[in-house]
Amino acid sequence: MKNQKLLINGERLKHSLEEFADFGRTDNNGVTRLALSEEDRQARDYFRSCCEDLGMTVKVDDMGNMYATLFGVENDKPPVVVGSHLDSVKKGGRFDGALGVLAGLEVVRTLVDHDIKPEVPVMIANITNEEGARFEPSMMSSGVLSGKFERSVMLQKEDSEGITFERALNGIGYEGEIQNRLNEAKSFLELHIEQGPVLEREDLKIGVVECVVGMVCYEIEVIGESDHAGTTPMNMRKDALFAANDLITEAREKLSRLDHELVYTMGRMNMVPNIHTVIPKKVVFSLEARHQDPETIQQVEEIIHGLTHSSGNEECEVKITKLWGRDTVWFDQRVVDTLEQSATSLGYPHKKMVSGAGHDAQFIANYIPSAMIFVPSVNGRSHDEDELTSWEDCEKGVNVILEAVLAMAIK
Amino acid sequence: MKNQKLLINGERLKHSLEEFADFGRTDNNGVTRLALSEEDRQARDYFRSCCEDLGMTVKVDDMGNMYATLFGVENDKPPVVVGSHLDSVKKGGRFDGALGVLAGLEVVRTLVDHDIKPEVPVMIANITNEEGARFEPSMMSSGVLSGKFERSVMLQKEDSEGITFERALNGIGYEGEIQNRLNEAKSFLELHIEQGPVLEREDLKIGVVECVVGMVCYEIEVIGESDHAGTTPMNMRKDALFAANDLITEAREKLSRLDHELVYTMGRMNMVPNIHTVIPKKVVFSLEARHQDPETIQQVEEIIHGLTHSSGNEECEVKITKLWGRDTVWFDQRVVDTLEQSATSLGYPHKKMVSGAGHDAQFIANYIPSAMIFVPSVNGRSHDEDELTSWEDCEKGVNVILEAVLAMAIK
Repeated sequence: MKNQKLLINGERLKHSLEEFADFGRTDNNGVTRLALSEEDRQARDYFRSCCEDLGMTVKVDDMGNMYATLFGVENDKPPVVVGSHLDSVKKGGRFDGALGVLAGLEVVRTLVDHDIKPEVPVMIANITNEEGARFEPSMMSSGVLSGKFERSVMLQKEDSEGITFERALNGIGYEGEIQNRLNEAKSFLELHIEQGPVLEREDLKIGVVECVVGMVCYEIEVIGESDHAGTTPMNMRKDALFAANDLITEAREKLSRLDHELVYTMGRMNMVPNIHTVIPKKVVFSLEARHQDPETIQQVEEIIHGLTHSSGNEECEVKITKLWGRDTVWFDQRVVDTLEQSATSLGYPHKKMVSGAGHDAQFIANYIPSAMIFVPSVNGRSHDEDELTSWEDCEKGVNVILEAVLAMAIK
Repeated sequence: MKNQKLLINGERLKHSLEEFADFGRTDNNGVTRLALSEEDRQARDYFRSCCEDLGMTVKVDDMGNMYATLFGVENDKPPVVVGSHLDSVKKGGRFDGALGVLAGLEVVRTLVDHDIKPEVPVMIANITNEEGARFEPSMMSSGVLSGKFERSVMLQKEDSEGITFERALNGIGYEGEIQNRLNEAKSFLELHIEQGPVLEREDLKIGVVECVVGMVCYEIEVIGESDHAGTTPMNMRKDALFAANDLITEAREKLSRLDHELVYTMGRMNMVPNIHTVIPKKVVFSLEARHQDPETIQQVEEIIHGLTHSSGNEECEVKITKLWGRDTVWFDQRVVDTLEQSATSLGYPHKKMVSGAGHDAQFIANYIPSAMIFVPSVNGRSHDEDELTSWEDCEKGVNVILEAVLAMAIK
């Protein structure tokens, strides 16, 4: 018979998730806890006190990132870090971000419960402003930690009321020291809700995330002529909507023949003049696509550029602009394996998957061996008050993190 | 050898068009002369004085419509009326409307020049608020004359600043008597710019308008689900744009197989939430179609309703709403013939055609034998500062009106 597994306290985790959801809870049981807001300050203060109650040391760096450390036997060794973010979007959910930070808290509480002293330090990280909902860009502070963004530029980012990030950070008393930054760690583990429907549809409990997929985002502008809808015969028109319609059909048809894991979306479309009695003179739409394989993204870009020369749109001009792109970030294979083995040893149904959304771990992976796991999102919903992950699934996710921490920091 | 034709004075017509364009002329040589504005008042006052200088009697009715009458031999007989409108859209052109009124003025000036006394009265009508640019609906006052609209309702229509039509009409001093309304006439002739490209493309000078085509306008709403563009696999999406794209393709394909004179336009389209990283949850677009034959319009409506049950859109809901429709208005055959014979006798290249746009004559045709002619619009442009009809083409149009007036009021 196997040894009995060490497991977390599911009731305590649930209680803790609900406690933190009180900081900015909305009428519809969602959360509005924008970065560096009063609600964020309250959540941070409470997080700090929870950690200190466990005997942890809490430090804050120059971006407001919080690091709570449980010291172990060899305290000069790099820590095993469990982290995510406590900020939310406006009218967001209770799980996005908070689950990953409170996973760390519950793991440490479990260790303390059982008088387990880790070999190396165990750290919980709360990374500032992952969402970018108040101060763009998203993943701002992990971007600074990894060298992706310039701190001096980020400090001057303003919210919709003209308040700078620097002023807001100072205002809630969370401007710490640059020497406190997370510079080195044994590993960085992030538990997050999936924000998609895959795990739920496939009746799996854990997604072991191998990478955050690369993406490209284009803007396609179709220019025709805005004539009178009643007086212009069909064969004398330059209808930008009809041309755009043909381009979208062509793009969909060609993209659908690429890999089945490719996702592509025309999420934004605007017409000019957008009057029902006038032939559209301009249609502008976005086309973004995401896939882990750079070759597939390359094929996507070739298809998009080929749209300029499509037949059937001779009458309209087509301008194609690449707005931006980012490469796939592969997580550390050993950390991925550890997480997968943890899920296996706990007997939770799981699979390896990719992340279509961005997360702090993708920037931190730049200098620390990192990986993530996902737990199911009911109906795939997130960034929404309806966001939901069952307590049982949250518990399973944190058990996998605990198991991985035990594997990396204890044994 | 044929008798020499009586012709108008082209230089005087040009001068007159330019004089009236000064009332509201824009920097780009267009015109902003909204109904019942100060510019409209100035144009009306000047029009009245021009008519009075010719010995005409000017009356105003309760909608502000102006009627200038040149009395003839039998003054108890119904008049031959030449009319259109002096109001414009914002940043409109110099020809739309004004040409039809000033055609009347030039015709009367020509009669007076040559001491021609008509058998029946010749009247020039300036119909209030054809454009509906300041006070909706368009063709407001011809609508009241014909019983299409209720006067009491129209008087309470407000502009964007909350000023009622009644107050504005009173404000410029053009609220006249109900007994002055145009109640009967021998015929109503309206010269208008084509506002489309057909005459210019076919190198014709005159379009004899047989009807104003009927039309239907629908709104089509496609409802899907707005999931995360990065985390939702293609086969788990309910993408409202993709569904709308398929519906538009299907509608275009089926509509293109109907009569080649059918015109159809999806001029307005809005997406929700319209964010590039979110799958569209709702797309709403307009579909309007115009054709003279009610059977063709019936076929159009069957095609539109058939879109609800299209294959390939099982994932999204489709709601189809008819916003409004109007029947084709056929002009009086004898008036049409007279105008056509006039063009023929003057040797101007012409053809019979339909009007895809609405005009006052279509409402007046309800109770007075009416018809219209079009002159070419350069590049089909109208409701635009670029609107242009050559002076020579304006002159030819007015010559056709003169010839028709001579045929109906003199001979």
